[in-house]
Amino acid sequence: MRHFAVLLLGVAIMVGRADEPAAPPYVTSIPAGYRDWKFVSVSHEAANFNSIGAVLGNDIAIKAYRNGTLPFPDGAIIAALHYKHTPSEENNKVFGKEQSFVAGAPTNVQFMVKDSKKYAATGGWGFGHFQDGKPAGAAFLKPCFPCHAQAKATDLVFTHYAP
Amino acid sequence: MRHFAVLLLGVAIMVGRADEPAAPPYVTSIPAGYRDWKFVSVSHEAANFNSIGAVLGNDIAIKAYRNGTLPFPDGAIIAALHYKHTPSEENNKVFGKEQSFVAGAPTNVQFMVKDSKKYAATGGWGFGHFQDGKPAGAAFLKPCFPCHAQAKATDLVFTHYAP
Repeated sequence: MRHFAVLLLGVAIMVGRADEPAAPPYVTSIPAGYRDWKFVSVSHEAANFNSIGAVLGNDIAIKAYRNGTLPFPDGAIIAALHYKHTPSEENNKVFGKEQSFVAGAPTNVQFMVKDSKKYAATGGWGFGHFQDGKPAGAAFLKPCFPCHAQAKATDLVFTHYAP
Repeated sequence: MRHFAVLLLGVAIMVGRADEPAAPPYVTSIPAGYRDWKFVSVSHEAANFNSIGAVLGNDIAIKAYRNGTLPFPDGAIIAALHYKHTPSEENNKVFGKEQSFVAGAPTNVQFMVKDSKKYAATGGWGFGHFQDGKPAGAAFLKPCFPCHAQAKATDLVFTHYAP
């Protein structure tokens, strides 16, 4: 009876594997030291996102950005730090105008890690999304690659380097 | 005759000095390496400014920010990199929505340099503003100090550190 149960379980796992092909690998841990990386650019996503953010790069990414090296070499990592786009009452009081928006509560940190072998299935980039330090899973990250694939001319990277 | 001319010149200089008290010193050259400094936060100034920017800090400034050290110690330098707040047609096309704004043309870079002796007349901070690499003069920088003086609780610094 016990062997039969184990066999059933084995069949179930095999069926599961056949129905859902393994998700491509993605970034499951936060790259060390990213908060000290150099500045690439800033962005503001209005509408539902209501987000303001900064993009930073590790040394390999920054070097590639500055030299215009495309595709980005293996080892390049790009980080996007997102915050709520938040009015600054403090600044507006001084300005005497409702004009100033700053980084409010942090919402998430996202990464693109270049490893052309490990992440071959997603254009050589591993995608990652972390909220309160916890990684998002495969289903959440599935739309990253097809969307970024539209930025083919810049090796799937949307953010341009700000001088 | 020659001595008389020199004397007249001397009197003219003295009169000039008496009429216009010397402007407090300000930052006249761009601190080296600022584009490699660590990230403090982002900001978006709407209305007439239409600006998006990043604030970076040298190691002394970043350490003070992270430790909550106030006042900032001598040697701290804070840089504000400003760009036109510019819609990204490229991103909007992918999103299918008019929502994405990025750093457009750079507009100016501003600095606050802490030196409690040199800049004693302006709260211990030297202010600087550079457009196309050229420094603004005393008249342009005059409003910096009285405005920043309103942020007394944070040692005249408006920008808070983003985690």
